[in-house]
Amino acid sequence: MDGLLEQGLNRIDWIRSRMALLRGVRADFEVRKPFAGKTIGVSLHLEPKTAVLLETLVAGGARIVGTGNFGSTQDDVVAVLKHWGLTIFGRREIGWDEHLGNVDEVIRHQPDILLDNGADLVALAIKAGIEGKIRGGTEETTSGDDRLRAEFPGKVPFPIIVINDSPLKQIVENRHAVGQGNVESIMRMTNLMINGRRFVVVGYGWCGRGMAQYLKSFGGIVAVVELDPIKRLEAVMDGFNVATLEKLAPWGQFFCTATARERVVGEAAFAAMSDGAILANSGHFPTEIDTDALRAMAVGVRRMGPMLEEFEMADGRKLILLTEGRMIELAGVEAKGNSIEAMDLGFMLQALSLDRVNSAPETLAPGPQAVPKDINRTIATQMVSDFAPDA
Amino acid sequence: MDGLLEQGLNRIDWIRSRMALLRGVRADFEVRKPFAGKTIGVSLHLEPKTAVLLETLVAGGARIVGTGNFGSTQDDVVAVLKHWGLTIFGRREIGWDEHLGNVDEVIRHQPDILLDNGADLVALAIKAGIEGKIRGGTEETTSGDDRLRAEFPGKVPFPIIVINDSPLKQIVENRHAVGQGNVESIMRMTNLMINGRRFVVVGYGWCGRGMAQYLKSFGGIVAVVELDPIKRLEAVMDGFNVATLEKLAPWGQFFCTATARERVVGEAAFAAMSDGAILANSGHFPTEIDTDALRAMAVGVRRMGPMLEEFEMADGRKLILLTEGRMIELAGVEAKGNSIEAMDLGFMLQALSLDRVNSAPETLAPGPQAVPKDINRTIATQMVSDFAPDA
Amino acid sequence: MDGLLEQGLNRIDWIRSRMALLRGVRADFEVRKPFAGKTIGVSLHLEPKTAVLLETLVAGGARIVGTGNFGSTQDDVVAVLKHWGLTIFGRREIGWDEHLGNVDEVIRHQPDILLDNGADLVALAIKAGIEGKIRGGTEETTSGDDRLRAEFPGKVPFPIIVINDSPLKQIVENRHAVGQGNVESIMRMTNLMINGRRFVVVGYGWCGRGMAQYLKSFGGIVAVVELDPIKRLEAVMDGFNVATLEKLAPWGQFFCTATARERVVGEAAFAAMSDGAILANSGHFPTEIDTDALRAMAVGVRRMGPMLEEFEMADGRKLILLTEGRMIELAGVEAKGNSIEAMDLGFMLQALSLDRVNSAPETLAPGPQAVPKDINRTIATQMVSDFAPDA
Amino acid sequence: MDGLLEQGLNRIDWIRSRMALLRGVRADFEVRKPFAGKTIGVSLHLEPKTAVLLETLVAGGARIVGTGNFGSTQDDVVAVLKHWGLTIFGRREIGWDEHLGNVDEVIRHQPDILLDNGADLVALAIKAGIEGKIRGGTEETTSGDDRLRAEFPGKVPFPIIVINDSPLKQIVENRHAVGQGNVESIMRMTNLMINGRRFVVVGYGWCGRGMAQYLKSFGGIVAVVELDPIKRLEAVMDGFNVATLEKLAPWGQFFCTATARERVVGEAAFAAMSDGAILANSGHFPTEIDTDALRAMAVGVRRMGPMLEEFEMADGRKLILLTEGRMIELAGVEAKGNSIEAMDLGFMLQALSLDRVNSAPETLAPGPQAVPKDINRTIATQMVSDFAPDA
Repeated sequence: MDGLLEQGLNRIDWIRSRMALLRGVRADFEVRKPFAGKTIGVSLHLEPKTAVLLETLVAGGARIVGTGNFGSTQDDVVAVLKHWGLTIFGRREIGWDEHLGNVDEVIRHQPDILLDNGADLVALAIKAGIEGKIRGGTEETTSGDDRLRAEFPGKVPFPIIVINDSPLKQIVENRHAVGQGNVESIMRMTNLMINGRRFVVVGYGWCGRGMAQYLKSFGGIVAVVELDPIKRLEAVMDGFNVATLEKLAPWGQFFCTATARERVVGEAAFAAMSDGAILANSGHFPTEIDTDALRAMAVGVRRMGPMLEEFEMADGRKLILLTEGRMIELAGVEAKGNSIEAMDLGFMLQALSLDRVNSAPETLAPGPQAVPKDINRTIATQMVSDFAPDA
Repeated sequence: MDGLLEQGLNRIDWIRSRMALLRGVRADFEVRKPFAGKTIGVSLHLEPKTAVLLETLVAGGARIVGTGNFGSTQDDVVAVLKHWGLTIFGRREIGWDEHLGNVDEVIRHQPDILLDNGADLVALAIKAGIEGKIRGGTEETTSGDDRLRAEFPGKVPFPIIVINDSPLKQIVENRHAVGQGNVESIMRMTNLMINGRRFVVVGYGWCGRGMAQYLKSFGGIVAVVELDPIKRLEAVMDGFNVATLEKLAPWGQFFCTATARERVVGEAAFAAMSDGAILANSGHFPTEIDTDALRAMAVGVRRMGPMLEEFEMADGRKLILLTEGRMIELAGVEAKGNSIEAMDLGFMLQALSLDRVNSAPETLAPGPQAVPKDINRTIATQMVSDFAPDA
Repeated sequence: MDGLLEQGLNRIDWIRSRMALLRGVRADFEVRKPFAGKTIGVSLHLEPKTAVLLETLVAGGARIVGTGNFGSTQDDVVAVLKHWGLTIFGRREIGWDEHLGNVDEVIRHQPDILLDNGADLVALAIKAGIEGKIRGGTEETTSGDDRLRAEFPGKVPFPIIVINDSPLKQIVENRHAVGQGNVESIMRMTNLMINGRRFVVVGYGWCGRGMAQYLKSFGGIVAVVELDPIKRLEAVMDGFNVATLEKLAPWGQFFCTATARERVVGEAAFAAMSDGAILANSGHFPTEIDTDALRAMAVGVRRMGPMLEEFEMADGRKLILLTEGRMIELAGVEAKGNSIEAMDLGFMLQALSLDRVNSAPETLAPGPQAVPKDINRTIATQMVSDFAPDA
Repeated sequence: MDGLLEQGLNRIDWIRSRMALLRGVRADFEVRKPFAGKTIGVSLHLEPKTAVLLETLVAGGARIVGTGNFGSTQDDVVAVLKHWGLTIFGRREIGWDEHLGNVDEVIRHQPDILLDNGADLVALAIKAGIEGKIRGGTEETTSGDDRLRAEFPGKVPFPIIVINDSPLKQIVENRHAVGQGNVESIMRMTNLMINGRRFVVVGYGWCGRGMAQYLKSFGGIVAVVELDPIKRLEAVMDGFNVATLEKLAPWGQFFCTATARERVVGEAAFAAMSDGAILANSGHFPTEIDTDALRAMAVGVRRMGPMLEEFEMADGRKLILLTEGRMIELAGVEAKGNSIEAMDLGFMLQALSLDRVNSAPETLAPGPQAVPKDINRTIATQMVSDFAPDA
């Protein structure tokens, strides 16, 4: 067996063995074969966890024609998927044109159902005029949902269930997993203590809140910056010192962003921070920390490790940037992103939603919409019975 | 000065001195006199905290005509309110007929605005046909809201702002204050340890969640019973053992109800509990623990203190009921209910909502409705600036 | 039955029913009668919990001759003890001379064994020259231990086991129970929120540490003042902001002392505190907060409730003193002191130590000494088996 | 510059930049040159953190002659140390004989002072008869201390200060850093959730306690196994379920050992564990989990990743062993061991102790002994002033 394939199979083994929810779905799909004779067009990060989702759909009788998202495709996983007989276009090192060609290729295979991430497939299907052929699909992200509502207002002719809308994702992923993953990432990257250190968490949405809570639970002294008055009150009531970034800039030793906004930590804050302050972003986009301004202000830059850069200011202070301002949870050789169980939940949402779109499209309105409530309840019940069998 | 009046004034002093939000409202009302020439009809618990609210409305120019809720009126507070010149009907020891007469009396004074608790005033005003005279009002409770929607569907001709709907109440009162108050009450009543003891929290709404969290933070070993699968998943993800009451009945040493449902802990659970188990209700109604069944099952009952009763079962086990199944947070000589700050917030919601109803009724639809968002934001901002002046 | 007796019996019932350790001791003593024919001279707080200890000793065959400590005797408990046939001298309202006479009376009864609190009995026995008659005894407090070592260095001719020396007391009582009790007391007395409020804990011994930990677990923002550099480092590593009282005086909203030192919060701090600051002492002596200085500085004093006094400073600021600077955990109508289980542990230490002194004095050196290790281990094992039967 | 050297220099840069305590020591040593003319013989793990210690000693005027411990030497660090002009013997891939030869070589250089780890140098110096030449030294480990007391009882003719004895190490390293590092390691290796999962912590010393506390703070449901009754009571009072391993084996999903004892989790436990249970050791020696028994019982072994092995039992259950039973905190590409600050503290203890041994040997008794109290106090004060400058 070739090395790439073997590596991919090995990595998938561990993950599959801990995905209890998808295991249950597969057992059911193997009997029912809900997707028999159907083609599912897929556009998704191609990494070990998604491989287990695709394998589950195949167990349900689906023919898979898919491609990866730009820049995240893992070649060993592609090798596995092809080995399993799926029709996959894509590899890690490709240009934008080749990527678009791959998306095109998926649509040319005339899928019945779409499993989309960022609305690329849905948009192309509508533009290509094949929407009549399509029963419906799922969209992983909120930004894909936003795109559909903006580009095709009221014009998506088939149902698209938006996975990230599910309250289960908030509960399992955003409230806990992200906060804990960020604490782990900061420790792993910096090798520094959490307890007794001063943290400024910028943004008090679900992710910022989780981060603040878990840093505090590890003995960090945590202050919060938040613009929305209701969330600011939540932070106060949750026992955090709340202040403006202006006030906290000289106080903090770590600055952690989770705002989904751009350049929330920028020039004025950099000018006021203490020597040695560390900058970490946990938000999705690498623009929450204004790294351009940081580079412009610096009189010297020194790499201190694969994920650490030190910026020297004109007055001699040094600021440390983690992983170039990119999401810390995904950076580094041993970074693995969200926990297997959190992804297992998200993928059971995918699998049952695709099943619903296929088997009962008449129960769904056309266009983007929330996960049906009964699916949320079924999955919650299933996940509880895995974690707490006596419940 | 007579003793009752003096006692009332003394009790109000401390509370007023810590109600920073109402102090700010009063300063504004004293200048603007928004209620000048208006009568506010009031039906509310007459206790020291509400006295500070009424005083604030008077500072805004209002004439107050009011009565208490059945059974909760405190005579020393009534003495103070009369001493301040308010028109108040009511005293602690009255029968139901006298109470109804008092409500009648308030309506007969032709109020312009209603401050209601349980919808008694609104219902009577509509029945009495004086609704044309009334600009609108507020309703403290969700059950008053429910009553209006059931008895007068689409027929309340003036705006009624429902205070308990505000997200601020969830954040400040239900998420934290109630949970902490319950831990305090259990310690105060039983004089027992929390740490190392086994607690079953029945119900994982905001109150149950707060109770579970704070019992755990004091070292209690906490398990949760919850029927709703989404909330059950929340409890699991928050790190609690989740199981059925059937499984937990022999395990628990304390059983704490917060479900807003009736008889959730009953005969089957009593039969299975261990010797010495303690039963505490933190929900609003004294029916969550089926005390009738408990009394029926008991072969002996012994009072162990003002808030403790011991029930002997036929097999010799003894179960302890706190404060006859009534809400533990309000029972006992030194029980004071929710914190002053939580009530201060609720009353600022009242004051600004009454002001809005009076000064800009045209911005409000008729019928029961949520607190306007700008009022929530104003109050959140104000409360944060009290707790965290640098925010 | 007379009212005082009945009240005492009722109060003792609940406590006895939750003292699992003493129940086990009593079962053993009833069979073995280790104290048959012996007189135990007792000097102890006479309150409901100690009554259960004395009852246990009587079950072991002891004749009890005892008196209370000055100022803490509860008449209903004395009524019970007399009703049970114990020889008790003392009542609540007595002068110092009568108290000394009572101690004298105990010694005149020629006890074989002493159960002492503050070393009054031991000191008097030695002075009276009856030490030859005495097999040994126990001393509850560290200050009694200190007194014996200072007044009678190397001269106490019989073994005295010092109960407070036991590591079990540190673990059960000081590390957890005191901290939790203080949080409960502050809530009960002030009716204020803990979460979001700023606390300064002065002193980071076991009690201060417990208080800091549990205030933080309730959402308080906690800073610590401590002079000893090792403990200061502990506080830092435990995740607390650590600073001088000078720096923290304007920041704090609550100041809680637990230092066992005098006047640690005094004039300079009062001058710097913010308006509305609250002063609470959890240490044993009412001298940690310099109340004399506070009264001297105040231009006005106002009582805001049975346990609250407001002191107005010349510049208009107001400071609030809880329960006149006395230990907050013991103040108030519903204050009950340490949990029943913590006292149960302390009294099992007493009971087994008295048994050892009586039955195997030859295994003990003369003079004050630690609880024998095997007794600590026996009791720890017993308490664990009550809390965690599967251990 | 050659690649190995450059890599070593880069890795050391970040660590040095965050070692505030050693930076202060170096500033002092550079002025005082306390070791001028002296040779320090070193036997220590040669990794980036120790390089900063050795550099500090060189700044103090010392000539360093050293070797690594067996199996832990990092070649890039050796390259740096040689580049700095230190006399270093050792490299990663050497046999036992070459290692012994290296230790010999250090002693042949006639050091004045010894910096030892495991007592190799001290033992050899005594055997070689050069002890008269040596002023004294330090020993990093408790096991080195034990070895000296066993092999040379009362016969070590010079003072050896045992670093691990210092209470500061307990507070900074064992109480917090190890527990947090273990949580991070479990997350990094398994990519699994902590919250809602069931953990059995075996051993409740400082490390087990930290692990239990921090797993719980991340939402884990934690039970403790401990043999010592006093520690068992501590675990109960700290709010953990405590039971025997026998009872907990079927319940747990993760088993974490921290006992410093051999084979505490073995055949009987493996036989009773649930399918999918994960085995992690955080103790120093790889013998706490009986991996021999596990391998013998297994009907199949499958590697699931670089640090994960799956053992299939005859009945089909699968158990997962992390990093072959070796200390999880040190396993994996990105594992970095204890935090930089914790090592900085340990090395300031080393530096000041070596200074004391050199400059004031007359104040020290011969033989192994605790760190002088004034050194502990100096360092605690210094570390606090770094973490909490207002203290």
